[in-house]
Amino acid sequence: MNAAAPIAFYFDFSSPYAYIASEWIEALAARRGRTVRWHAMLLGASFQVTDIKSPVAYPLKREYVMHDFERSARFAGVPLKMPEPFPIATQNAARVFWSLNDVEGPVRAACWARHCLRAYFARGVNLSDALALKGLATEFGLDPTQAEGIWTNPEWKARLKAANDSAIACGVFGVPFFIIDGEAFWGNDRRAQIERLLESGPF
Amino acid sequence: MNAAAPIAFYFDFSSPYAYIASEWIEALAARRGRTVRWHAMLLGASFQVTDIKSPVAYPLKREYVMHDFERSARFAGVPLKMPEPFPIATQNAARVFWSLNDVEGPVRAACWARHCLRAYFARGVNLSDALALKGLATEFGLDPTQAEGIWTNPEWKARLKAANDSAIACGVFGVPFFIIDGEAFWGNDRRAQIERLLESGPF
Repeated sequence: MNAAAPIAFYFDFSSPYAYIASEWIEALAARRGRTVRWHAMLLGASFQVTDIKSPVAYPLKREYVMHDFERSARFAGVPLKMPEPFPIATQNAARVFWSLNDVEGPVRAACWARHCLRAYFARGVNLSDALALKGLATEFGLDPTQAEGIWTNPEWKARLKAANDSAIACGVFGVPFFIIDGEAFWGNDRRAQIERLLESGPF
Repeated sequence: MNAAAPIAFYFDFSSPYAYIASEWIEALAARRGRTVRWHAMLLGASFQVTDIKSPVAYPLKREYVMHDFERSARFAGVPLKMPEPFPIATQNAARVFWSLNDVEGPVRAACWARHCLRAYFARGVNLSDALALKGLATEFGLDPTQAEGIWTNPEWKARLKAANDSAIACGVFGVPFFIIDGEAFWGNDRRAQIERLLESGPF
């Protein structure tokens, strides 16, 4: 099998649909000999540039998606209990992600992402709370004080900003967002189309 | 088999995703002993109330969906060639729909809907052009002058407005929108979830 390009997977730590997708994308990719390159981002940064708003910003849509988040998770077989508060600021978890990515490699960063996404959406751990995030860092085998040192460090703040800018430049206006061999897919609900593309190429 | 409630299917004549769904919903329902009750509406009326905008109103999202419309159609095996102009005003086709619905019944109205949707999305017939719409009426076996008399008649204008108000009251903020046994589903991409619900009940 030829070495195929990795799947680019953009997510925000506060997106339920990105969380659901994060639970199936690795296995789906691996079945077709692909790897996944995870990209943590702040969706709010994209919203500011594009003038797009979160679905939960509109009362009627909010009511629908708050039900659909959990229903879509059940449909995918993924444990999800909508956390309180929701949505939350996720820049600290994202800065740790990029630090791990650049220092220890993308696989370690992806593990951190899964650890945090599951903590927030299955256990209700508030990622925007510094103490709770330090607790997750400890669980993950990081020194909690060093972890805090990462998310307060201008270098990693700048790294996350660059990652946001790069995502926007790639056309990312929502999450989960996938780019595979130049084809862009937006949404947890594009799973079947992604599967078809990996199986038999562009359609 | 007990007589199960019809599936409520909300669409706008100018929505590519609603067109795609219109091509699979009847067969999917029939396989489970269900009928479909079609509801023509003007999505713009819902957008005005909810402050939601069309995906094509945002440049980055527009670029994505213009590609995704045709790709999703190919994925579903539905012929779709994005028409010019797009989007268009569809109140005339929708008024004829409600007149047919109230006078000749919902099955005849659904046939008109499919006729117009296919004309616009597969053949590029501009439904907002009175002459073109009269041509479609003739193909459908209607007298074209009588058809025009319907869409200029205050009674059918009011009927469409009532249908829009009713859709908004039911929580419809986008199309296609389905309500099945009290469960709401938004989007052509909810097909698999709808199938699961019809097969084995709420999940």
